[in-house]
Amino acid sequence: MTSDRLAILDDPHLFSFMPMLYVAWSDGELSDVEMTAICQHVSRTAELPEPCTHLLGRWLDPADPPSARELETLVKTIRTRAADLPNRDKLSLTGLGLALAQSDHDASETERTALYEVEKALGVIGTEAARHMLASRRPAVPHEPIEPTFDFEALRALLDQPNADVRERIYAIIERPDFDLDRVRDVTVDDYREQVFQWLKVVADEGIGALSFSSQHGGGDSQGGFVTAFETLASFNLSLLVKFGVQFGLFGGSIQQLGTERHHAEYLPDVGSLELPGCFAMTETGHGSNVADLETTATWDGERGGFIVDTPPGRAGWKNYIGNAARDGQLATVFAQLEVGDEEHGVHAFLVPIRDKEGNVLPGISVEDDGKKMGLNGVDNGKLRFDNVFIPRTSLLDRFASVSPDGVYSSPIPSRNRRFFTMLGTLVGGRVSVALAGLTSAKVALTIAVRYAERRRQFGPPDAPEYALLDYLTHRRRLLPRLAKTYALHFALRHLAERYIDDSGDDRRDVEALAAGLKALATWHATDTIQECREACGGQGYLAVNRFADLKADSDIFTTFEGDNVVLLQLTAKSLLTDYRNHFHDVGVFGIARFFAGRALTSMAERNPIATRLTGEKHLRDRDFHLAAFTWREQHLVGTLASRIKSRIDQGIDSSVAILEVQDHMLLAARAHIQRIILEQFLAAIERVEDDTLRGVLDLLCDLHALDELENDRGWFLDHGYLEPSKSKAIRDQVNELCDELRPHAEPLVNAFGIPKKCLGPIAW
Amino acid sequence: MTSDRLAILDDPHLFSFMPMLYVAWSDGELSDVEMTAICQHVSRTAELPEPCTHLLGRWLDPADPPSARELETLVKTIRTRAADLPNRDKLSLTGLGLALAQSDHDASETERTALYEVEKALGVIGTEAARHMLASRRPAVPHEPIEPTFDFEALRALLDQPNADVRERIYAIIERPDFDLDRVRDVTVDDYREQVFQWLKVVADEGIGALSFSSQHGGGDSQGGFVTAFETLASFNLSLLVKFGVQFGLFGGSIQQLGTERHHAEYLPDVGSLELPGCFAMTETGHGSNVADLETTATWDGERGGFIVDTPPGRAGWKNYIGNAARDGQLATVFAQLEVGDEEHGVHAFLVPIRDKEGNVLPGISVEDDGKKMGLNGVDNGKLRFDNVFIPRTSLLDRFASVSPDGVYSSPIPSRNRRFFTMLGTLVGGRVSVALAGLTSAKVALTIAVRYAERRRQFGPPDAPEYALLDYLTHRRRLLPRLAKTYALHFALRHLAERYIDDSGDDRRDVEALAAGLKALATWHATDTIQECREACGGQGYLAVNRFADLKADSDIFTTFEGDNVVLLQLTAKSLLTDYRNHFHDVGVFGIARFFAGRALTSMAERNPIATRLTGEKHLRDRDFHLAAFTWREQHLVGTLASRIKSRIDQGIDSSVAILEVQDHMLLAARAHIQRIILEQFLAAIERVEDDTLRGVLDLLCDLHALDELENDRGWFLDHGYLEPSKSKAIRDQVNELCDELRPHAEPLVNAFGIPKKCLGPIAW
Repeated sequence: MTSDRLAILDDPHLFSFMPMLYVAWSDGELSDVEMTAICQHVSRTAELPEPCTHLLGRWLDPADPPSARELETLVKTIRTRAADLPNRDKLSLTGLGLALAQSDHDASETERTALYEVEKALGVIGTEAARHMLASRRPAVPHEPIEPTFDFEALRALLDQPNADVRERIYAIIERPDFDLDRVRDVTVDDYREQVFQWLKVVADEGIGALSFSSQHGGGDSQGGFVTAFETLASFNLSLLVKFGVQFGLFGGSIQQLGTERHHAEYLPDVGSLELPGCFAMTETGHGSNVADLETTATWDGERGGFIVDTPPGRAGWKNYIGNAARDGQLATVFAQLEVGDEEHGVHAFLVPIRDKEGNVLPGISVEDDGKKMGLNGVDNGKLRFDNVFIPRTSLLDRFASVSPDGVYSSPIPSRNRRFFTMLGTLVGGRVSVALAGLTSAKVALTIAVRYAERRRQFGPPDAPEYALLDYLTHRRRLLPRLAKTYALHFALRHLAERYIDDSGDDRRDVEALAAGLKALATWHATDTIQECREACGGQGYLAVNRFADLKADSDIFTTFEGDNVVLLQLTAKSLLTDYRNHFHDVGVFGIARFFAGRALTSMAERNPIATRLTGEKHLRDRDFHLAAFTWREQHLVGTLASRIKSRIDQGIDSSVAILEVQDHMLLAARAHIQRIILEQFLAAIERVEDDTLRGVLDLLCDLHALDELENDRGWFLDHGYLEPSKSKAIRDQVNELCDELRPHAEPLVNAFGIPKKCLGPIAW
Repeated sequence: MTSDRLAILDDPHLFSFMPMLYVAWSDGELSDVEMTAICQHVSRTAELPEPCTHLLGRWLDPADPPSARELETLVKTIRTRAADLPNRDKLSLTGLGLALAQSDHDASETERTALYEVEKALGVIGTEAARHMLASRRPAVPHEPIEPTFDFEALRALLDQPNADVRERIYAIIERPDFDLDRVRDVTVDDYREQVFQWLKVVADEGIGALSFSSQHGGGDSQGGFVTAFETLASFNLSLLVKFGVQFGLFGGSIQQLGTERHHAEYLPDVGSLELPGCFAMTETGHGSNVADLETTATWDGERGGFIVDTPPGRAGWKNYIGNAARDGQLATVFAQLEVGDEEHGVHAFLVPIRDKEGNVLPGISVEDDGKKMGLNGVDNGKLRFDNVFIPRTSLLDRFASVSPDGVYSSPIPSRNRRFFTMLGTLVGGRVSVALAGLTSAKVALTIAVRYAERRRQFGPPDAPEYALLDYLTHRRRLLPRLAKTYALHFALRHLAERYIDDSGDDRRDVEALAAGLKALATWHATDTIQECREACGGQGYLAVNRFADLKADSDIFTTFEGDNVVLLQLTAKSLLTDYRNHFHDVGVFGIARFFAGRALTSMAERNPIATRLTGEKHLRDRDFHLAAFTWREQHLVGTLASRIKSRIDQGIDSSVAILEVQDHMLLAARAHIQRIILEQFLAAIERVEDDTLRGVLDLLCDLHALDELENDRGWFLDHGYLEPSKSKAIRDQVNELCDELRPHAEPLVNAFGIPKKCLGPIAW
């Protein structure tokens, strides 16, 4: 009886019900009972003539549903008749129904009421379905370029400081046609290594590798330039970057920093030109972070006047993960336990030849290839073993310790511990560099994801273009707080690099602690951001051409190498405990114990019972509030940490055990300390900006960063009464609000990172 | 004047000060002022003879520090003399000093006091350094096998249910010598694809691929067996797994589920034997999750009696990421908009030949290779474009809709929406399978990381073996809550698979919502767990041979394919809103609106003002508490979500906009719903365990899982007054406590997953 049912198309009394009828069926989720109830209700209230009620009943009879074709005909009719209606009439079923009826009659009050109640009953499902009902194909829209509303060039200049000239030199190299990422996209490990070696040679020929060496040995006298080069190269290919870091930063840097003039003159020119590829052989399989316990020995041989370098039996003492070891390295800086007679002097660095110029492995040296890795497959990592290898006395890098020809050990640094950490100081530069490279990786990922999120559209309102991904609150939430944190880290790492480069020696320990902590937070941020950006780009993000494959696989090890992040945060925490002691130095050496014991929290920033409840936007965006919260958390965590450790030691618990028991607390304290510094440095950087439009945008970013961190850690702040629930919720709302406000600036803000187009995937072009 | 200073070695009055003197220098962190203060204090209080005071002063003179050799001689003497002392004398500087003096004299009270105060002043640094002072090389310890203290075989049997026979068949295939992961470790994309095809052929020949097809077409009539096979294969190689899923699950499954007998008979035997490799061509470049808006059309051609399949101009309408498209596929299930005359019937599925038997691409078909991907490079993903390709009428998979020879469209499902979702139902099996495969990946990662954490040792107390990684609190915190969640998800996914397989049709929507939500949470859990396990294995975790490289790269896309996780959680949330409506159905259709509007929270589980403060272990480990908390969160989030959406719609805001505005809330609600179900299913599984020892361990795991989730979300619970800060802190302590208690069970618990040794890396052997 199909034809009967379609009579509705010609019955003006029922025009207003057409959308509702379609929706009731199209969703398919109404139960029979509901269907019947709707039918009865409409029949009762709408005061229709009997034939109309009958026809309506036929449409709403669960036992005899309309056919697919009848429904298609119904919806086509609705669409045709609704085509010319103003948009406001399409927002609800009632509105649409009444507008459809309008052409014929003004709806009665009862009709209106019936429709409205049915619509309410259908609830979300109803309006969703109404949307589908009117939507045919959505118009496609080309992406409109987004014009920055702030001084974009000022931001570019700010981000490129310092050493903008070095940055330009690196970008010029990357722009060469032979620097083509396609060349290493689908190759075996061997071919990848060869390509990276070729690229590295180009970089060396341009004088970039030797930037940090002294000019009398062919260098550029610019530690800062070297760091900038490293940071910038990271936007291209991380295998090249790591090989660059191994050769010039670690291997060359160890000779520069641990050796003396003799070593510099003999080796640095060839290191800088890549004539002499080399290794930094510190880590052993069984002793990654625990360098003090490594097994390789260098024993003074008085008769021959040199050292015997030897790896004891077992695999734990093999040097491992050593870059340049598997293929290219000819000389290695080897860290070994120095033994002179029956004296054990601890870990020292020695230069040990491992291959001749032709690449043949030398006698006594065993090499094992680490093979395929998760990423960085352009770097030839390998294992090294030494079987009683003799090296001359001058092979000891002797800036901080030497052995005289008659076998007498001496060092300008009496403290064994301090000597050890001074020699490990070579790692600090590596940590600064890795932190910067990690952040560059995050910048590349964000540039791709934000630009894609402005271009890619999916789902959306009826008869309008689909929404851009960045129109979605959850998408903004995924990307924009990470963008804000990237900016925050940018300025914090600039600050770290400055302090590292200007290192006058006095605050060496501070810089080390800062480098350790910032390296940990920056590299974890990179891992997290790259992952989130990949997911935010969906299937496109999975195609290698769009860069996430390499970014993710290559940067993954950043959280481990140059120091495992968990171990590094513990270094930072230990330094904080020392600071804590020094801070109270004026009360006298023997007063310190009382401070450890007495929970010296009274001197800290107080919780303010009014402030814990303030929820106004002005207060929530007040940087004094942000900084006070970050500082309070840090001081509370450090103070209670010191107190917990002290109380354990007082009970006779070994300090190593005490520290083990509060290890989670140590990590929290270190993290809070670094987070406070990151915020401070962001604020300080904004202070120095002169252009108001730029300051305005950076202020928003900084507010978002601070509030996002507070939201993420709101459990802790609530636990400690620093926030009340009302304020915690208000912070969440502000984060959403700031994501909205920043949305128009998002693309300019990633463009300002200045990542070359060839380092982005096609989805971001 | 070196010789003078070493007189200390022979002066019994100063024996007790030797450790303290060494530590004061060895750390290198004491300031000059502190050094002088220590010297003055000791001189004043220790009542030493003048020559001794003078000698002590020489050791503590910042202007004339001892040499490195003097310090080495000092520490060697201390070590030698301390060698035979009992360990309890080595715990503090004072104790050690007094013990060293003991051989000569009993220390005076003043000596004792002076030593003790200096030790207190040195604080943490002092005791740390004392540890180093006594530590020489630490003894290595072989790993002792850990004997389970619970019924291990009962757990193995429990985890292997159901279809243990299928699991055995898969393991037998994996054990074949040609199933060797080394073969695909360092190969190009082409070689990888070829190897995976060969492996897949073996699996097909064993009848595994056709398990879910009906036996009259060569199948095994076992949907459950197929799901188990998929889950188990995931432990070996995920490219093989995904190719398996594409061929048999998606392509074969679409024919089985959307086609009718004619299609089954014609195609299923060849699909199952891999004679006919095929594609599941749904996703388009511009329309990933938004299937309803895809662009490919299939237009009825009345004259020729078939359909014209066509891709409109532009790249957005190309089918993309299609497995088997780039190399092997001969036939494709293509999803396209069906148009009959001027009727648009929405998305339907058609069988379209794309290559002949020789592998030549057919006329009208364009193929583009997706090229190298982040992972899964053994799968030949590609893009497909159709240029007015004619297919016969019977190519429409016509179980749910057909077009008659005279061009009349009909469907047994009148609702367009329901028809659409029914056809998309093929994806549900994919989601169940991907969730299981993700969890298997997490199990492999945890097995490797936990076993490594028992074997690898680093740092530790003096003169004792180094600590195993799992001895560290932070390491347990990284691995054990994830292990607990993996168990929880295991039982939840078992429950899902059962419901999916037994699907009687009535609760179809429930199963779909559950599959969507569990797929999202399980695959995010996999990504997170694999990452954490990789980092927990340090540099070893980065070597490809240790499996994380593949696990991470291959499983990464699990959060996107078969439905983007964010989109899937929104599906779950929408289903919750419908449930919410249905739940209140008994108050009548027109009462629903009042519930949406009226925040119907009074009917929910109440916050209990006493319970919010309880902090005792008994309460914190009470499953009623856990379940009440999870349930309260879910109900609160769903209720307030419904209320927020309704109030927006009442204000005349379009429902799509309303949903956009509360999108973060929707995700939270969906997540809370799924988390409650996960916990319930874990509890239900434990209820069914009969062995007490096993129940005990599973109870601990379940407690850890529940409390870890509460800790992670404590911000929310504190915000909503469900937890007081004191209780929140007590939960954190309980998590630490449970990690300790579970530690001895950790290795047996991962061994029980039964992952074959060849699927683990050598670090886990």
